[in-house]
Amino acid sequence: MPAKDIYHQTVRNALEKDGWKITNDPLTIRIGKKDMYIDLGAEKLIAAEKGESKIAVEIKSFVSRSEMNDLENAIGQFIVYHDALAIREPERILFLAVTHKIYLDIFEEPLGKLLLKNQRVKLLVFEPKKEEVIKWIK
Amino acid sequence: MPAKDIYHQTVRNALEKDGWKITNDPLTIRIGKKDMYIDLGAEKLIAAEKGESKIAVEIKSFVSRSEMNDLENAIGQFIVYHDALAIREPERILFLAVTHKIYLDIFEEPLGKLLLKNQRVKLLVFEPKKEEVIKWIK
Repeated sequence: MPAKDIYHQTVRNALEKDGWKITNDPLTIRIGKKDMYIDLGAEKLIAAEKGESKIAVEIKSFVSRSEMNDLENAIGQFIVYHDALAIREPERILFLAVTHKIYLDIFEEPLGKLLLKNQRVKLLVFEPKKEEVIKWIK
Repeated sequence: MPAKDIYHQTVRNALEKDGWKITNDPLTIRIGKKDMYIDLGAEKLIAAEKGESKIAVEIKSFVSRSEMNDLENAIGQFIVYHDALAIREPERILFLAVTHKIYLDIFEEPLGKLLLKNQRVKLLVFEPKKEEVIKWIK
C-alpha cells in the first residue's frame, strides 16, 4: 500500500468537522489484477437528497520540486481512480483534496483553470491549519 | 527541459520509417506561465485527406518499479498535454508512444482496456528492436 500523504489526518479531521463519517481508510478498488487504494471513503446523510451521499477522496500535497509533475501525476491518478470507481461504485463521487495554497497557485492559473473547465478533476479545497473544508469544486 | 526518454531516437526512427517528417524535437506549448515539452512533433502528407496530418508524440518507457505509477503518470501527462494542445494547435493529434511489450502488459489488461475504451489516451505502439510502428490506437 502506498505511503499516506502528509495531510491524511488533516483531511480526515476536516471531513469529520464537515459532518462526514469516514467509512474507508483507504478505500480499495480492484480492476483485473490491479489494486488501487484511494485515501479515504466517506458518507453523509443529505436530507435534501433523502439519502446518503458517498465520496472518495485522494489527498495530494504537491511537495515535489516540479509543480508540473505533481499536477500531471495528480490528474493521472484521479482519472485512473475515477474510471475504476465508475465501474465498481458508480454512486460514489471522487475528489482530489488540495490545500487552499495549492488551489490558488495551480487551479487559479490558466492551465489549472483549463483542466477544471474540461472537468478533468473535482476538488476538495481545505485549510490545513484550521483543518477545515473551504470549498468543493464539482 | 525534462530528460529524453530512452526510446526517443528509436521512436524518431520508427516515425521516419513510417513516412513521417519530424518537425519538432521537442514540441513546446505554453499555457499561462507553464511551458510543456512534448517529445516530438511530426507531419505527413495524407493523399486521402488532401492535406497534411500533424501529430505530437510523448514517449513513455514505463521503467519505474511500479507499473501503476507509470500508468497514472503517463495518463496524467497525456491529459494535460492533450488539453493544452487542443487550445494551441487543435488540428494536431497527440499519441502516447509505448513498446509492444508495454502495450500487451498494460493496455491489453482490464484497467488499460478500460482507459482505452473511455478514450483517455491514444497510442502509438512500436517495436524497439526493429524501430518500427506496429499500430496506432485512436
